[in-house]
Amino acid sequence: MTDKNIQLTSTISSDNKLTLALQEIDMPQPKADEVVVRIEAAPLNPSDLAVMFSVADMSTAQQSGNEQNPVISAEVPKKFMSAVKTRVDKATPVGNEGAGTVVAAGSSAAAQALMGKMVAVIGGGTYRQYHCVNVKSCLPLKEGTTAKEGASSFVNPLTSLAMVETMRAEGHKAIVHAAAASSLGQMLNRICLADGIDLVNIVRREEQETLLRDMGAKYVVNSSKDSFLADLTAAIAETGATIAFDPIGGGQLASDILNCMEAAITQDVTEYNVYGSDTYKQVYIYGALNRGPITLNRNFGFAWGVNGFLLFNALSKLGTDTVMSMRKRVADEITTTFASSYTHEVSLAEVLDMKSIAAYGKQATGEKYLITPQK
Amino acid sequence: MTDKNIQLTSTISSDNKLTLALQEIDMPQPKADEVVVRIEAAPLNPSDLAVMFSVADMSTAQQSGNEQNPVISAEVPKKFMSAVKTRVDKATPVGNEGAGTVVAAGSSAAAQALMGKMVAVIGGGTYRQYHCVNVKSCLPLKEGTTAKEGASSFVNPLTSLAMVETMRAEGHKAIVHAAAASSLGQMLNRICLADGIDLVNIVRREEQETLLRDMGAKYVVNSSKDSFLADLTAAIAETGATIAFDPIGGGQLASDILNCMEAAITQDVTEYNVYGSDTYKQVYIYGALNRGPITLNRNFGFAWGVNGFLLFNALSKLGTDTVMSMRKRVADEITTTFASSYTHEVSLAEVLDMKSIAAYGKQATGEKYLITPQK
Repeated sequence: MTDKNIQLTSTISSDNKLTLALQEIDMPQPKADEVVVRIEAAPLNPSDLAVMFSVADMSTAQQSGNEQNPVISAEVPKKFMSAVKTRVDKATPVGNEGAGTVVAAGSSAAAQALMGKMVAVIGGGTYRQYHCVNVKSCLPLKEGTTAKEGASSFVNPLTSLAMVETMRAEGHKAIVHAAAASSLGQMLNRICLADGIDLVNIVRREEQETLLRDMGAKYVVNSSKDSFLADLTAAIAETGATIAFDPIGGGQLASDILNCMEAAITQDVTEYNVYGSDTYKQVYIYGALNRGPITLNRNFGFAWGVNGFLLFNALSKLGTDTVMSMRKRVADEITTTFASSYTHEVSLAEVLDMKSIAAYGKQATGEKYLITPQK
Repeated sequence: MTDKNIQLTSTISSDNKLTLALQEIDMPQPKADEVVVRIEAAPLNPSDLAVMFSVADMSTAQQSGNEQNPVISAEVPKKFMSAVKTRVDKATPVGNEGAGTVVAAGSSAAAQALMGKMVAVIGGGTYRQYHCVNVKSCLPLKEGTTAKEGASSFVNPLTSLAMVETMRAEGHKAIVHAAAASSLGQMLNRICLADGIDLVNIVRREEQETLLRDMGAKYVVNSSKDSFLADLTAAIAETGATIAFDPIGGGQLASDILNCMEAAITQDVTEYNVYGSDTYKQVYIYGALNRGPITLNRNFGFAWGVNGFLLFNALSKLGTDTVMSMRKRVADEITTTFASSYTHEVSLAEVLDMKSIAAYGKQATGEKYLITPQK
């Protein structure tokens, strides 16, 4: 084991500048309940970009430094500075998850049991070479699982599973999912197919429609078509979906979904109710692909909710038993139901390359980056 | 007991016309668990206007008929007709609540026990002279309570109490209330004063500020002032309010409330969290004083909800025991905590007078109509 340890950090300075850079840090020493994981693979998810780019205007990004030690700078619009004041002048480590081998372990039995094992880890800046984490933040992977296979064991698998478990816990029977061709969406589609749950996939391009149908999706509606609202209403009527998950937020998709649900529910009703149907309709917003205002045009009565949805909050609502069985399922099915695929593998230095940034910054379906910090 | 029975109905016809009229109906015969209540007083609430005027354009209203039998007609904009298609060509009885004496009772013990009693009733068109209701829809009033005192025993008292009970059930400790100078708002203010709960009242005019302060309200903020957002944030920081009730809906007040809550919660936080605070923030929208779109400008993280709030749904969530003790409290305190005052008393015919309509149609603070169907 080497003494060298490098991490990727994102810093917003008080002069309205974002700096992304590699930083040499100490090799960590694990406490009793901690292990040191040699991070061999870590995915670039939208939630990582939110920390990395934050509120900077990436169209102003410039590269400096050298090949081993690239530095990216970008301007932060002044109006956003107050929103990020608590991170100003602090080098923030990036990376929510990853996988690798446990190379050092604390004195506790739980830590020692992981020694030499391949684990997935969650939290705290995984875009580094050696990461020290509590054993609770580790998911031991099945014998033979590679770091690449296990790199995305938390964010997408647990979020998509949490959607299904939330649907069950809150008494709904089918799901509407927006931006459904994403990695997470494909995973949700596989879970729903496996568990016999009807899933209404909303996409905005024809090739995404094809992609999901080829993966067995039965209900795919395209929001770019003129028939979108009618198509969505018909799919909701057929499936009885009354819960939706939307990573977009801004705009009126949440509103459209609620209105289509209400239309589907009341299409055979003959009795007028000034308050709308009393069937509860829920949209959870779990991202901000569109940061603009959410606009709700109420034609959906009074039995509705639009709520933020965040993995950690959702897990704590679901409870320990459910979460433990979710984690087990992820580990068991990481190469099937929860498999992720990547189009590019890059080193820590290559993450800070202008061309890479332009590509993964688009957050487009079909482009997925994996970081291999040992390269 | 006379044989005459008259009710007020609202009809939207397929030729896009709203008609409000009095209709002679049969004197009802109670079934075993029913009683006939001689309605002596019934309030005109915003929720009644929603049934009465519905989607008609009341600026086109015209009066015809005669003094005993006035008829109001108004145009319904064509674009709204599909939203009310299930009530087209049906004479819809108006009136959600009222009070009066039980003049006939069914054979059950529960029904017989109410014979001759003064009761408040909920549901089914109380703007009539004799109303037949299930005993469960009756609240027996204390000896000596008048019909006028008991007329508003359900909608405002139970809604304001349901807000307080929902706050408790969902683990919040103080409340934000919008349009807080309304009859309901004044009631909520009295409940909160009695129960020692901090209430942040949002009003939009100075005289409403004075009105509430004169009634003992400690926190009153005026949304017309330039300092509104700062004032609201300060009041929320002081009270720790994380739940709000808003009867307006349209516009960005719900969003402002959530953003002020988040600002209050995070004002002393030094650690940056890309997902915002994990303190859950809730806005319930219980009306549509503004029917325009609800606009949410998200600077409030991911732990939030904006939900519709409807009395009957809220009661069923709170459960039977809580609801029974709420009803008892209303009956016990109907002349104090839950007292309503009225500026006008009108007969059924006088409700359909153009001048009355112009006055109560405004839904302005300080104007409150009581209908006395026996006049």
